[in-house]
Amino acid sequence: MTRQELISLIRERRTFLCVGLDSDPAKMPEHLRGKKDGVFEFNRAIIDATIDHCVAYKPNLAFYEAQGLEGLRQLKLTMDYLHQLGKPAFTIADAKRGDIGNTSQQYARAFLDPQGDFNFDAITVAPYMGADSVQPFTVYEGKWVILLALTSNKGAFDFQLTEDREGTPLYQRVLSTSRQWGNDENMMYVVGATKAEMLGDVRRIVPGAFLLVPGVGAQGGSLEEVCRHGLNADCGLLVNSSRGIIFASSGTDFAEAAEREAAKLHEQMAAVL
Amino acid sequence: MTRQELISLIRERRTFLCVGLDSDPAKMPEHLRGKKDGVFEFNRAIIDATIDHCVAYKPNLAFYEAQGLEGLRQLKLTMDYLHQLGKPAFTIADAKRGDIGNTSQQYARAFLDPQGDFNFDAITVAPYMGADSVQPFTVYEGKWVILLALTSNKGAFDFQLTEDREGTPLYQRVLSTSRQWGNDENMMYVVGATKAEMLGDVRRIVPGAFLLVPGVGAQGGSLEEVCRHGLNADCGLLVNSSRGIIFASSGTDFAEAAEREAAKLHEQMAAVL
Repeated sequence: MTRQELISLIRERRTFLCVGLDSDPAKMPEHLRGKKDGVFEFNRAIIDATIDHCVAYKPNLAFYEAQGLEGLRQLKLTMDYLHQLGKPAFTIADAKRGDIGNTSQQYARAFLDPQGDFNFDAITVAPYMGADSVQPFTVYEGKWVILLALTSNKGAFDFQLTEDREGTPLYQRVLSTSRQWGNDENMMYVVGATKAEMLGDVRRIVPGAFLLVPGVGAQGGSLEEVCRHGLNADCGLLVNSSRGIIFASSGTDFAEAAEREAAKLHEQMAAVL
Repeated sequence: MTRQELISLIRERRTFLCVGLDSDPAKMPEHLRGKKDGVFEFNRAIIDATIDHCVAYKPNLAFYEAQGLEGLRQLKLTMDYLHQLGKPAFTIADAKRGDIGNTSQQYARAFLDPQGDFNFDAITVAPYMGADSVQPFTVYEGKWVILLALTSNKGAFDFQLTEDREGTPLYQRVLSTSRQWGNDENMMYVVGATKAEMLGDVRRIVPGAFLLVPGVGAQGGSLEEVCRHGLNADCGLLVNSSRGIIFASSGTDFAEAAEREAAKLHEQMAAVL
């Protein structure tokens, strides 16, 4: 999905919500646990319930990999379902990959290649290994690399805020250096909602870039704060909620509960757009 | 595998070689390409040919994930084979994972859990997201996290050598900070052979830690330099070679060629032990 298509989708649906499919079987409703294709069935119900309230889905690879080969089969079923749904959605492999050039090429192929098992629109990538670890993800037409800049967790303080000799924190250095590797058409950034006050600094460095913002809801970030500091003329935000939506109820009404939570965020987002 | 078991294995076999299973089907001998279970057959032949010359195997996840679900099945067959071989080997998932705490827990389960599909001894992890992204990998008894410190690629210069206000490069800050998260029994570090002259600085910060050293061979690092700066009283090194061994020949004699290359490194390693 190109930048223009994503912007059009946001304007049309009046939302910039991303639903995180952190589909941990242990937290799914009891009637789906242990059931054949239960994870896919859960995801399909969540997708059907939320597709009109969001523009993106973000499966978190860890929760599928933790179930072994069977878990990845559930992910493939989910992606196949999204691809044939008839309603567009931007898809993000939340995979946090990144390795030397020839290896990142293989990861790009695994997640972004239209002929591959998954065919995501985007993948999250860690910047620690630098240019050649990131650039291979920018070569697929209409596909995206989403680079970690400032994450939503406590550990973000360990290195991301470390200032260099000029007083520039590492995450800002990641933002500015990475502008040589990609552009607003193929590179986004992860900026946690729990650090919303820093979104202003982020926007000064990457005014036109889309930001993927996790941490609203369960992790404590505020949508209002994120919008105040992060919105740009093209919206420029994808705000993710995972647990707050998909595990809003652990009963048989999980899909209705998910829709209710997604609709609440949709309404707030429509109001600011 | 515990630290003491690893040290004993190194002393017994007189080698600290790690064979990297970057088993790209496109580079495999023609008679195995496209064949059912061809990747597993390739890996099995490489393992049989090299097991007496090395102490560790390091499948690079990217090359399996690039083949989709089928690639991961080949990885599982390979791990199953290693587990029933009757000759011990330390196994490393070169996966470069790392995410917020509850997600890293799931990655740890995916790769280290003895009940999981893979049951590796160790996994490589990127440090960008800090403490809670790394600690979940240290909780499995006798299992290891291998943290990226100084990698072997060109992109390592983008951020890893950035000096903070006190003049400490980021990779050294990663080394010293991470000592609060683990110890020499459950945490190793990646230090590229292409930066062997910095191994002395690394050793000053983590004198007792094992170092996983990629970049010897195809990437240009020198084994002699690595040993001069990196060896400690317990050896403390796992030196990896991937392409230089497994793709030493692209003909039907690939396993013999791999054995020859592994034996050369074995001989050099035996001489320094």
